Amino acid sequence: MSQEDSQPSFAEMINAALEHTIPVAHKMGVTALEARPGYARTRVPIEGNGNHFGVMYAGVLFTVAEVLGGIIPMATFDNSRFYPLVKDLQITFKRAAKTDVEAEAKLDEESIARIASAADANGKADFTLDAAITDAAGEVVATTHGIYQLRAHGR
Amino acid sequence: MSQEDSQPSFAEMINAALEHTIPVAHKMGVTALEARPGYARTRVPIEGNGNHFGVMYAGVLFTVAEVLGGIIPMATFDNSRFYPLVKDLQITFKRAAKTDVEAEAKLDEESIARIASAADANGKADFTLDAAITDAAGEVVATTHGIYQLRAHGR
Repeated sequence: MSQEDSQPSFAEMINAALEHTIPVAHKMGVTALEARPGYARTRVPIEGNGNHFGVMYAGVLFTVAEVLGGIIPMATFDNSRFYPLVKDLQITFKRAAKTDVEAEAKLDEESIARIASAADANGKADFTLDAAITDAAGEVVATTHGIYQLRAHGR
Repeated sequence: MSQEDSQPSFAEMINAALEHTIPVAHKMGVTALEARPGYARTRVPIEGNGNHFGVMYAGVLFTVAEVLGGIIPMATFDNSRFYPLVKDLQITFKRAAKTDVEAEAKLDEESIARIASAADANGKADFTLDAAITDAAGEVVATTHGIYQLRAHGR
């Protein structure tokens, strides 16, 4: 096994940290499945997160998508200099979620370059992130449109 | 003590039911403080809901406000015929919430009459609800704009 294989993946590090960084999301069972520069995918189980009709609660769908706006910047930018925060998030519910769900979002290379450059110059940079949440059948149950900011530490 | 005084308030009934209707919100500690036709106020503690910086997680702020769109219709319309669901919710974060927070929203009498009439005629009626979330100092930490629907059972 190479040294690279024996190191935890970025998703594994995110999951190990989540209990302490966002205990509420950890308690829901939110986990990162993939996390790399410009892309992340998360998952949350229906177990414990449904209402009395067996439909996943809106706040859980919000959470599994919202955290992408934290995970992607951490996997993409210099964490020693910058951290992400959420400024605004709109979630549109398309259909009832009755299974475990996954959420995914991506930042294209052009956006990444623009954000890095603006944060470098101004100490902060706003960016948008659109996520899709899908159920076990691959149907989109909700979409989110978030406005986040990458901000320099101590600012 | 009159019979009226000895009966639980609508807010107390909501709180007793929340553990079963939305277990996730109950686990966060969300409670209804007031609930009457056209108005509701909710609360959630910072304890257990913060991140590692002691700031309340965005998904908890979402939840304490989103549930108003369930509570107000239940306190306002005929629950034997109609139930509420959320279609779209936008939350705008104004400042970090570092204390317990309260959320409140109201539906004016004109809107209530319109919704009741439309639901009666069509079996469903969309409505918007704007909520404000304030911290212990009375500062607004976030606002929400939600689109909900009152819908006839079995539809």
